[in-house]
This record gives sequence, structure tokens and C-alpha cells, in this order.
Amino acid sequence: MSKEVGITVSKNENFSEWYTQVVLKAELADYAPVKGLIVLRPHGYAIWEAIKSSLDEKLKKSGHENGFMPILIPESLLSKEKTHFKGFNPEVFWVTHSGENELGERLALRPTSETLVNSLYSKWIKSWRDLPLKINFWNSALRAEIKATKPFLRTSEYLWQEGHTVHSTEEEAEQEVMDILEIYKKTIEEELAIPLITGKKSENEKFVGAVYTNTMEAIMPDGKGLQMGTSHFLGQNFAKPFEVKFLDKNNVENYGWQTSWGVSWRLIGAMIMVHGDDRGLVMPPKVASIQVVIVPIYYSGDDRKDIIAKADEAQKRLQEKKIRVRVDKRDELTPGFKFNEWEMKGIPLRIEIGPKDLAKNKVVLVRRDTQKKTDLQFDKIDTVVASTLDEIQKNLFDNAKKILKEKTTEVDDYEDFKTQLEKGMFLKAPWCGNQKCEEKIKNETGADIRVIPFNSENTESKCVICKSSSEVIVIFGRGY
Amino acid sequence: MSKEVGITVSKNENFSEWYTQVVLKAELADYAPVKGLIVLRPHGYAIWEAIKSSLDEKLKKSGHENGFMPILIPESLLSKEKTHFKGFNPEVFWVTHSGENELGERLALRPTSETLVNSLYSKWIKSWRDLPLKINFWNSALRAEIKATKPFLRTSEYLWQEGHTVHSTEEEAEQEVMDILEIYKKTIEEELAIPLITGKKSENEKFVGAVYTNTMEAIMPDGKGLQMGTSHFLGQNFAKPFEVKFLDKNNVENYGWQTSWGVSWRLIGAMIMVHGDDRGLVMPPKVASIQVVIVPIYYSGDDRKDIIAKADEAQKRLQEKKIRVRVDKRDELTPGFKFNEWEMKGIPLRIEIGPKDLAKNKVVLVRRDTQKKTDLQFDKIDTVVASTLDEIQKNLFDNAKKILKEKTTEVDDYEDFKTQLEKGMFLKAPWCGNQKCEEKIKNETGADIRVIPFNSENTESKCVICKSSSEVIVIFGRGY
Repeated sequence: MSKEVGITVSKNENFSEWYTQVVLKAELADYAPVKGLIVLRPHGYAIWEAIKSSLDEKLKKSGHENGFMPILIPESLLSKEKTHFKGFNPEVFWVTHSGENELGERLALRPTSETLVNSLYSKWIKSWRDLPLKINFWNSALRAEIKATKPFLRTSEYLWQEGHTVHSTEEEAEQEVMDILEIYKKTIEEELAIPLITGKKSENEKFVGAVYTNTMEAIMPDGKGLQMGTSHFLGQNFAKPFEVKFLDKNNVENYGWQTSWGVSWRLIGAMIMVHGDDRGLVMPPKVASIQVVIVPIYYSGDDRKDIIAKADEAQKRLQEKKIRVRVDKRDELTPGFKFNEWEMKGIPLRIEIGPKDLAKNKVVLVRRDTQKKTDLQFDKIDTVVASTLDEIQKNLFDNAKKILKEKTTEVDDYEDFKTQLEKGMFLKAPWCGNQKCEEKIKNETGADIRVIPFNSENTESKCVICKSSSEVIVIFGRGY
Repeated sequence: MSKEVGITVSKNENFSEWYTQVVLKAELADYAPVKGLIVLRPHGYAIWEAIKSSLDEKLKKSGHENGFMPILIPESLLSKEKTHFKGFNPEVFWVTHSGENELGERLALRPTSETLVNSLYSKWIKSWRDLPLKINFWNSALRAEIKATKPFLRTSEYLWQEGHTVHSTEEEAEQEVMDILEIYKKTIEEELAIPLITGKKSENEKFVGAVYTNTMEAIMPDGKGLQMGTSHFLGQNFAKPFEVKFLDKNNVENYGWQTSWGVSWRLIGAMIMVHGDDRGLVMPPKVASIQVVIVPIYYSGDDRKDIIAKADEAQKRLQEKKIRVRVDKRDELTPGFKFNEWEMKGIPLRIEIGPKDLAKNKVVLVRRDTQKKTDLQFDKIDTVVASTLDEIQKNLFDNAKKILKEKTTEVDDYEDFKTQLEKGMFLKAPWCGNQKCEEKIKNETGADIRVIPFNSENTESKCVICKSSSEVIVIFGRGY
């Protein structure tokens, strides 16, 4: 592979440029003609499909159904919940015309659908029999980005799912908020192989309109935090202005208790950053559209036929074990070119079959994560490939967990805090709970409270800023 | 079920009102707060998911991949192909502001993505090795509707898929146009149980920007035609302005040959109209999210336990045969209410289990399409249910085919043409190929050429309008 085709910078030396090259050269995404927007190429979209399919199955099993909401929300509706509108207004795209005609009222491209959903839920819900109502929407959201675009991390339109639920009791709604966080955590840790810290957002950082926001935070190799998804307890903050009411078993009218929650294609960005290396993308086997690529190696037409036949046989054996596999039969490219291309595209495992392998009835197995090569008897191909994919999945998670541990440090002194932050660390620090201390840190260092981990109450230590009694130990860091 | 809850008009007497009631009362869709837009409720979205999943599998098997394109297209890009832009311009929604800022250039909400796709394909395609490029997009399109909205049939935003392909030869592109039409036809006839007439659109009715448009036409019970999907041969009409070029094996630069094609949630509208009856929706088993509903019938707590256990056992048996089944365990509703509700929602088959059935180790089977009730030995439940679902699927298609046949008539005289049209017929009539005759009919009767069936060349007869030599026998009709 020529220099131009492959990744030309090192992940350690120029992380930002490395990321962009992986996105573009592994053909995950490309820039759209409108600034701030991206396009997903098939290799990138297939990863989103894998995440979507896994999450969708879990949501359906837990009683959620899918629906569709249109992308246009009238201004009067979006502005009905005031805090919410204030939060989103600066980044809303406004439709003012259809064809040559000016519209009577401006229409917003949905930045999120709480207002639209609730205007309908108030019609659909009449009695306790209609609850819980748990609907999820696989769509896109639009929020005009002023800062520099970063594919998957910061774009003006992004793919996501947004769930919106209504419950008859506060307890049930709060349980839903936690159940969803658990579903997300399972998907991200077990499939994307990215370890998380879960907990609450501070008042400053919570979703506009929520009572509180639960969040999942991951650390990236450059020491910055990435919010991986959120699950909000909305209380009755939307139910009241939108009149989402129900008659209970005693025929008494009550407001519903609500939640909303979402994860986006940002998860793909995290996957790239956490697992990728100088050769390009590394996909965890569970979300890889292709888990194994078979590269037949031949130098003459005679060899070709037999080797392709063996490769096809291997594919068949693996497919029977539900392993997603492709045979690369392109004649016009050298094996070396193919190796590099599939490595850059992050396929977890490569199988090489050449004339000598054929003679010995073996194949060569090459792991993407460790680059380790091993010879393998052909007869054992299905069991060994399956177990190797499991090992790769585990190895990627273990490595990511090690990084999270290494990059998290405890501090209780503000000078130490600043020193460690510059080294690209996540900081576990005591906080008094006062927004002024939080804001001081943000203004002076650019770090904010990424997450208040669950069960982090602590009254023994002193706030890292004001030295008054601490309420909790929180995670500070700079974020994406 | 009270009058208000059920469908209150007859399909034959007031077709339009009947349709709206089925959509709303079977909880398929609801109106959004913006005129011309609808929301899909879970029961409606599940049908779209079934169609999507079936079509997606077929497209992937035939070498298509999925991608994502953003919803915003700059005006300069949309207007690059002039005929195309002229056709869509009147119905484009324009974004002019983000937050408080006026944009430098207006952005269109995509009415279709040819222009956006080609601006990227021109970057991605360099050599013959990159071809064919066959990408499909599951997204929505926005076209501002001025006429009255009809859920699934005429809305300003609709769910669809749009495929965009590039080929190195004209022949291969034309073959793709036909292959896609075949995939669509298979899905619609075999799964939605709606018979089609396939063929070409006239020059007047083809897609703006296409060389020609292949189409699938179905007849609705009111005699109006519904275009069920289109597959366009674009030739090099977009490749040239967008410079979609490739180097061939001889290193010579060529323009690509292109196709685009799509079907939308309009298919759900057709399904409602073709199969529904005075009780509500009737879903063909293959696209039904729930194929069988089991209603346990009990009058005391003692009975309840045993009957629910039997219902659960039935469910398990059916699920092992991959039949999609739900047990309706809601205690607060009567069996009669449940029967009506599931009938309105179109579930193909109902199983009733009451105390007497339990004693005799049998169940009652009720078909949605014929309302026929039969007793069935419990032990045979899985095989009989599976074969009955097949029979229902077949019966729905046969009935629809009968209607298509009955409502299609041959005419060669214009007076006869008008009489038959008023009776709600599809008219097979000879046409000279002249646009003036086509326009005269449209202006005078409201009917247009729905489809020029394949192999319909005919030079023996005389044009129904001008009486000059006929070129083809075409299908005229009024359309949705």
C-alpha cells in the first residue's frame, strides 16, 4: 500500500490528524458539501447497523416499541417548555419557506423530540391502562455546530436513537432511567469493548428540562472524556406544560412521570479512538460487519482454482458457526495490498491460504489486535476462529480498562489538579457541591465535572477548590 | 367495543373516511402538529420494519450496501441538474437560519438525494475497480404537499429507501433497473399480497432527470391507481454535470452509467386499502408484526391460572415454529373487547382458549380474512396454524388479483373510455405515443397513463384519441 493510501501519522504523535485519516481512509465517513455535516460510507454505516441491531433487540425485549416522528417541529411547540427552548434555541436550524412561499410559522429541524412526542402522548394516554408507554425512535437530530466538525463526535446532524417513556409512578420512571443505563452499559462494554464510569451529571451539565441526567463517561487515549450516552429523569417537567395526564384506578387524574434517553453514532467515534492503532481501525469482533477476511494467495492460474476452492470451503465452515466472513477474490490486487487494506479497515482476523498451506492442509491466522500469526490445521478452523474472536474481544476491553485505570488519578489539591490535568488525566477530586467551585474550575482549566459516579458520597474530605466539606468525589476532566 | 372505538363507516360506502378511521383507530399513525406531516405509532412502524427488513435482506444479497446521507443539500448543488431542480423546486422546504444567524446559502431539505450522492460518488469513484457502486439509503424525503394530506399516501415527509448505483456499462445499469423492479415486485406480491402491473412511465410522467422510469402500478378498491415504486435509468444525465467518471481497463476516462430507485411507506397505505374491511385492518401474515393473538377466556380466578398456562404453552409451541404470537393477558378487558380490538388491528389469526376448550384439549381458531371459526386439537396447533397463515396469505393475494382483473377493461373508443372511467375502472387503451393525446385525456378526464406495460407494443389498433396508428396498449386511470 502506498504512503498516500495508508495512515501517514502516528496515533501517539498527532492524535487528531490520525483520527481524521482513519475515518476517511478506512472509508467510514466523508465530509458532506454542507459544513458540519458528514456522510456515512457503507463500511461506517455497517458498524452503526451492528450497534443498532444489538440495542434494538435489547430494547424490544424490555418492552419498548419503535415509532416515527417527523423532523419538523413548529416554533410554538418547541418553545412550550421554556428552559428546554432556551437551551436549544441557539443551535436550531429554521425552515422559513416551502418553495416560493414564506411559512406562517417557522419550523425547527428537531434538535430532540421531547416537545413533539409530548404533544402526541397527551392525546394517546387516557388511563392507567395505557401506561407504561415506552417508545423509541431511530432517527437523526440536528443541532448547528459552530465549533470545528469532527466526524462522529461533533456534527450538525447525527444518527441516534431517542427513547421517550411515560409511567404512572415516579419510582417506575426512575427505575426505567436506571434500566436503560444498564442496557447501554452492557452494549458498550460487552460489544464495543469500551469501559465506562456511570453516574449523574451535575446540575450545570444536566439535560435542559430534566430533573436529573444519568450519564456514561469513557476516557479517550488523549485523556479527554467522552460522554457516551445519557438517560434523563424528566419528572413531570414536560407532563405539566404538555398535559400528559392519565386517570388512575380510582378515576383520579394524575400527571405522568417521564424519562428520555439516547445514544448516537458518537459510539463509533469512541470505538475508533479507543481501539485504533497506527495501521488504522481495529473493530471489536462483536460489532464488526466482517469478522474474518480470507485472503487466498496464488501466483498462477492453476493454484488459483484450488486455493479459491479451499477459501470457499473455509468460508462455508465459518458461516455455519454464524461467523461473518468474506473471501477477497480480487485478482488485480496483490496479497500484500489486501492485507494492508483490511488491516486499515479494522477486520479483527485474517486468514491466509497459500500453495504451501494447501499442501499441508493448514491456514495462517493473523490477529488484527496483536498482529500475532499462527498456523492452524484446517480441520480446526471453525472452533479456533470462534475462540480467537472471543479472545480479541476480551483483549480489547482489557487494554481499554488498563488505560482508564492508568489515566485516572486522585487529587485533593488544586495545584496538583492542574498539573495532572495537563498530563491528560481524569481527576477524582472531592467537591462541595457548589456550582461556583465547578464554574471556577471550568473557567480556569477548561475541565468540567464529567460524571458524579454512583455511590460517591463522601463527607470526610475537603472540596478541591474551596476546602469546605466535600459532599462527593467526582470525576473532572476535559471533554469532547 | 363501543361504536366510537370501532370503525363507524363502511369501506364500500365512504372509502376515504373508512381509510382515515382505519389509520387512526388501528393506531397505525396520527397527525403531527405541522400540516401535512404524520407520526407513526408502534403498530404502524412495525409494518414498516417488516417491509424494510425483507427488502434490506434482498438488497444485501444482491450486492447492495447501506449508507447515510445528511438531510441538508445546498441550493447550488440541488440546482446543478437543471431539469431535476425545476421539477422539485416548488415543493422544497428551505432552511435559511441557524439560531439567530442567517445562512450564507439556503439549504434544501432533501426531496431526493441524486445531487448529494453524485457530488460524493464523483470523489469516491476513480477506476473500474470501484464499480459497480451500489448504495442504498433508508431515510426520509421531504416534499411540501399543497393538496390535502392522506396518511401514507400524501405527506410532506415520508419514510422510504433510495438506491443510487453507478455502473461501467449502459447494459449493466439497465439490467440493474430491471433487477430492482423484480426485487420490489417479489416483496410486494409475495409479502404484501398486492398484484402489480409493471412497465414504463410515459415521457410526461417519468422522474425529472431520468432517461426513463420503470414503474409498478396497483389498483385500489375505488378504481384509482397507486404507483407502488419506481426504478429509474439515469443514463449519464447526472454523471456528466457531476463528473462521475472512471478510468477503464485501458486507462481511458469514461462517465458512469447510473440508476436510482425507491419505495416508500406508501406500500402500507396500499396494504390498508387493498386488504382492509369494515372491521378494520387486515395484515398479510408475512408482514404482520403479530401473526397470531391468543385470547384466554376465563370467568374465575381458578380457571384463569390453567387457561393462561395453556395459552403460554401454545405460544411456546408456535414460537418454536418462528410464528410471531402474543398472548393477551389483560384482566381488565372482556374477551369480546379483545376480539374486536385485534380484528381492527388486522392480526391474521386469533386463537381462543376457554374452559370448555381446555377440558377437550382443543382451541378455537378464527381467521381474520374470512372470519371462519374452526375447532382444532391442541396437539396439531403448530402445523395447522402455520398452514392456515399460508392460506390467508394466498387468499388475500387471490382476492386482490380478482379485483385487479375485474376492474381492468379494454376500450378503443373515447366515449366508452369516459363511461368506464366513471365506473372506477383501469382502462387498457391503444395510444399513438403522442404527448398531446395524453394531455387531452388528462385535462378532460383527470386520468393519466399509469403504466406502459412491458411487451405492450401494438400497431394493429388505433389511438383511443386521435385514431392514428397505435404504438402501444397502455393503462389509463385516475391516480392517488
